[in-house]
Amino acid sequence: MALLYKADPVRGEQWKTLFAENAPDIEWRAWPDIGNSEDIEYLAAWQAPDDLEALLPNLKVLFALSAGVDQLDLGRIPQRLPVVRLLDPGITRGMCEYASFAVLSLHRDMLRYRQQQIARCWQAHLLQPSHKRRVGVMGLGTQAQQILATLQPMGFALKGWARSAHHIDGVECFAGREQLPAFLSQCDILLCVLPLTEQTQGILDRELFRQLPRGAALINMGRGGHLVESDLLQALDNGQLSGAVLDVLQEEPAPADHPFWSHPQILLTPHIAAMTQPESAFEVLLENIRRFERREPMTGQIDRAKGY
Amino acid sequence: MALLYKADPVRGEQWKTLFAENAPDIEWRAWPDIGNSEDIEYLAAWQAPDDLEALLPNLKVLFALSAGVDQLDLGRIPQRLPVVRLLDPGITRGMCEYASFAVLSLHRDMLRYRQQQIARCWQAHLLQPSHKRRVGVMGLGTQAQQILATLQPMGFALKGWARSAHHIDGVECFAGREQLPAFLSQCDILLCVLPLTEQTQGILDRELFRQLPRGAALINMGRGGHLVESDLLQALDNGQLSGAVLDVLQEEPAPADHPFWSHPQILLTPHIAAMTQPESAFEVLLENIRRFERREPMTGQIDRAKGY
Repeated sequence: MALLYKADPVRGEQWKTLFAENAPDIEWRAWPDIGNSEDIEYLAAWQAPDDLEALLPNLKVLFALSAGVDQLDLGRIPQRLPVVRLLDPGITRGMCEYASFAVLSLHRDMLRYRQQQIARCWQAHLLQPSHKRRVGVMGLGTQAQQILATLQPMGFALKGWARSAHHIDGVECFAGREQLPAFLSQCDILLCVLPLTEQTQGILDRELFRQLPRGAALINMGRGGHLVESDLLQALDNGQLSGAVLDVLQEEPAPADHPFWSHPQILLTPHIAAMTQPESAFEVLLENIRRFERREPMTGQIDRAKGY
Repeated sequence: MALLYKADPVRGEQWKTLFAENAPDIEWRAWPDIGNSEDIEYLAAWQAPDDLEALLPNLKVLFALSAGVDQLDLGRIPQRLPVVRLLDPGITRGMCEYASFAVLSLHRDMLRYRQQQIARCWQAHLLQPSHKRRVGVMGLGTQAQQILATLQPMGFALKGWARSAHHIDGVECFAGREQLPAFLSQCDILLCVLPLTEQTQGILDRELFRQLPRGAALINMGRGGHLVESDLLQALDNGQLSGAVLDVLQEEPAPADHPFWSHPQILLTPHIAAMTQPESAFEVLLENIRRFERREPMTGQIDRAKGY
């Protein structure tokens, strides 16, 4: 019985060591050295190889080495095969840190002060108390709930929106397309951590920005595909939005002529909000393998109908 | 019985309204319209007028409208007169927000990503988990303790140093000049919220930077007088320090030719970490007046020997 690894080779060495030390019963194979393909029961991958059924006839589980699975073409993965995303606590911590940084940056006018530093201008602006700052999170999954829990002690007025109804202490929750306008109208800072699906593709567009309070700010920590980039530029130019912190783009790495690089109201980072770290992710992956062996439910298994 | 206000006139109007609504027994006077000076028992001021004794013969308490009192020349204020600083919870919240922003900025390499955005460079750097990041706070007063409590859930390894011994759950505390080297050797990020006194003037100097781990980063939210600015430039240039977030300077507003404005490793803000907000400060000031009337100890009374 073997596990095939198909992702970044450098971190692959860390994964290999962790398996050798902690799960010697699971034989480690690293792509492209498959060996006897009939041995392989688990695939741990960022992207799946083509023609999975023929290549790995005895594959039992596909473990995506990422928190989202939009990079996988689920239509080409056999329906019978469980697909499991990685709920690495290290990823969640990274997302919480980035979210706190981004919310505080916008709350405390740091894009404006960044421009003032360039302009050598020493000028203070009025400070809004955090309880008057409404922060809305789109997506209410594991990561989003941790982000909300991190923001809560800072005193922000928290809102949340997701496809289905949620109840979270201290967060005013909204559900479904019908309640989206009511949610948006109360977000001074809107933070997107939605999964990328057909339904959420391009959701951050002109029509959505129009429903935010004038001068609101945007944080996108989901996927580049959520944001219609030209609509953001227009909303910043006409004052509907005052600023944006973006960690993801439609095209990554961003080309050198991308207009976001030099935009004074955009803080752009190169997809660094969170990174899978074998150190913290290994335990989660191994526990899921053990659960599968014991025929128990795995954490993070994808609902193929919903796509996340 | 009257209170004389001598500070920013715009916020003065807010203070005046709050007193009229909540403490009509205390007559409000705003500098320079003193009226009959013999009525004035309380002075609420940013800076005290000269010749206080002669000007306000019946003055009973000087309330500084700031968290620090270094702007007052204590030697010229009658020894018999209690001087009380303002422990505004709004100031403390502002300090906590700024400290979180600054620590997260340095922890998550945001000065480097700021430069990469300017250079149109999309490159991720390895992420250090927060439990391996040692954050040391200099000063362990009310504000510092709140800052430490805010940083704690983020998982940083916290250290604290002050003149006298402290015991704070989850924070490794150091005391006095003897333990300063041991403290400094363990600070990847050093955050200064010391009061400015003769003893702490220029404490952030070359000799101190030399005792930090190589590549450490500095946050100064104390006073500009704590930092020897030329020593910081040298430490950044020779790599002893990797970056700095500064909210205060020796000379404020900073002159246009100040070298910090354009330094790629310095994030400079115009003394905005916290601002006194009448809304949250009023209750504290009034409570101190009531305590004084009842002959109870006031919160924030200055120890004239220590100077804070």
